[in-house]
Amino acid sequence: MKIGILGYGNLGRGVECAIRQNKDMELSCVFTRRDPSSVKILTPGVPVYNVSDVEAHKDEVDVLVICGGSATDLPKQTPEYVKYFNVIDSFDTHARIPEHFNNVDKAAKENGHIALISAGWDPGMFSLMRLYSNCILPEGNDYTFWGKGVSQGHSDAIRRVPGVKNGKQYTIPVESALEAVRNGENPTLTTRQKHTRECFVVAEEGADLAKIEETIKTMPNYFDEYDTTVHFISEEEFKRDHQGIPHGGFVFRTGVTGAEKENKHVIEYRLKLDSNPEFTSSVILSFARAINRLHKEGVNGCKTVFDIAPAYLSPLPGEELRAHLL
Amino acid sequence: MKIGILGYGNLGRGVECAIRQNKDMELSCVFTRRDPSSVKILTPGVPVYNVSDVEAHKDEVDVLVICGGSATDLPKQTPEYVKYFNVIDSFDTHARIPEHFNNVDKAAKENGHIALISAGWDPGMFSLMRLYSNCILPEGNDYTFWGKGVSQGHSDAIRRVPGVKNGKQYTIPVESALEAVRNGENPTLTTRQKHTRECFVVAEEGADLAKIEETIKTMPNYFDEYDTTVHFISEEEFKRDHQGIPHGGFVFRTGVTGAEKENKHVIEYRLKLDSNPEFTSSVILSFARAINRLHKEGVNGCKTVFDIAPAYLSPLPGEELRAHLL
Repeated sequence: MKIGILGYGNLGRGVECAIRQNKDMELSCVFTRRDPSSVKILTPGVPVYNVSDVEAHKDEVDVLVICGGSATDLPKQTPEYVKYFNVIDSFDTHARIPEHFNNVDKAAKENGHIALISAGWDPGMFSLMRLYSNCILPEGNDYTFWGKGVSQGHSDAIRRVPGVKNGKQYTIPVESALEAVRNGENPTLTTRQKHTRECFVVAEEGADLAKIEETIKTMPNYFDEYDTTVHFISEEEFKRDHQGIPHGGFVFRTGVTGAEKENKHVIEYRLKLDSNPEFTSSVILSFARAINRLHKEGVNGCKTVFDIAPAYLSPLPGEELRAHLL
Repeated sequence: MKIGILGYGNLGRGVECAIRQNKDMELSCVFTRRDPSSVKILTPGVPVYNVSDVEAHKDEVDVLVICGGSATDLPKQTPEYVKYFNVIDSFDTHARIPEHFNNVDKAAKENGHIALISAGWDPGMFSLMRLYSNCILPEGNDYTFWGKGVSQGHSDAIRRVPGVKNGKQYTIPVESALEAVRNGENPTLTTRQKHTRECFVVAEEGADLAKIEETIKTMPNYFDEYDTTVHFISEEEFKRDHQGIPHGGFVFRTGVTGAEKENKHVIEYRLKLDSNPEFTSSVILSFARAINRLHKEGVNGCKTVFDIAPAYLSPLPGEELRAHLL
């Protein structure tokens, strides 16, 4: 199947790399908002087009992976490009998913295409774990923890503080909270009790470090409700130790069964990811395979990970899955 | 929806309890091979029939949960009863799944019914985790660990040893092996390095304890390839501490992504279950809901957990799932 990429940032590059690991896929083209001649991609011989030309290339692509940001790009891009392609995105503004779904669904149906929104790990695999676990254990509690990993939003917030040259923020789940949940204690946890925030900051020369630290730690919404640690490091240290984009987290469901609800169960799903965008890309491609198949079966409209039977994600036939993975 | 139970042992009782936790379900009847008047069930007012009468009650049931054993019961029962009902089982002899699937599929299609085989946690939720993870990370390694939990087969084997009055065996994953996998070390593990076996034995009066211990530890297939511990305990201790049927385990997938495959990822799914049969029952009922819906949409034949879009497991409409779980 022929994959197109729209938007060549971290996620687009992740998709490009992941295509090489899926033998039934090939990269057909990349669309960019930049001048195409300025975009160097990893795959030899694959054309880069300007987004304004998408329509001319609609027959070159089975599924278009839209790699824009959730805040402003995807709400416009996904309903727009589903007019020409089957599309998939990783829209991750949880509160706006219903609205995004409806917009994409309408445009997809009007144009006889299929779309899948919010693929990735949260939303995505974490959502699947919440759904499966809630169905299995209807009486229970849900817990989601994130990290250890880089929060892009919080890193951006640090970099906007006066006197900060560079910065990166790691979200870290509190180990004792994880243990309490894992032990079936069903704790009620405040924001502060669930996660801590660790910041690595390169300050400008002569900057007031105490002031920077204070500004970060008291920043409303971002840091004020958390226990935050600020480390000042050199530019060299920053370059050496903080270039990666690791992430991950935990989804728990704890519940009870039995005549007297006397038996406890704990379901735990954990991701430990060296590269957030590359893992997200890998999830996206599995679901791209699924919607490509569904479209061939005549299915249109907007889907989410909840609507996809898992067998559709695999390149292997049902017989082989049953023999080797069931 | 109306649920029937065929076979009223640990699993059947688990299904009965789980029905109470699912408001859209009710227990319609129980079928037993025993004299129905000898079977006391928990739910007041629900009839118990002899299995020989199934056909007379086929319209009283939307989905029949077949709670027989995998060795000899299910290979006969599931293809037989799918003639009269939509059915679900927890067939767990991995090597014989393809054969069982084909038999059930043929009978289901001939009679316009739907069946789902091998629901539970392994096969079942563990299989789903293997499938999702393999699709997401095509280049990587799979690890499954079981325990800490009771192995019925190994407990039976202990009880057959001369001089043993009662016994129970716990399978325990080796902590250092779990840690190595979790750290992305991709270890190659022997049988002995993955699990240990712990036995609690009540000996008959005057029995040769050293002989019993030796017989257990050297038992081919069951214990000889493992580090096994044998504890002799009193009947009272046994009754007090070893009545439960806990189980669980871990499914890992470790894989790489990136241009140079430089980034590692670890996916871990863990279950910690106080009651193996009750958790299995809870999984079964979710999938029973799904096949009941699919049958109403006109779907026939044999399915597995791989074939079910997760949204079908939930009593909630798609809109609500997208708003609250995605």
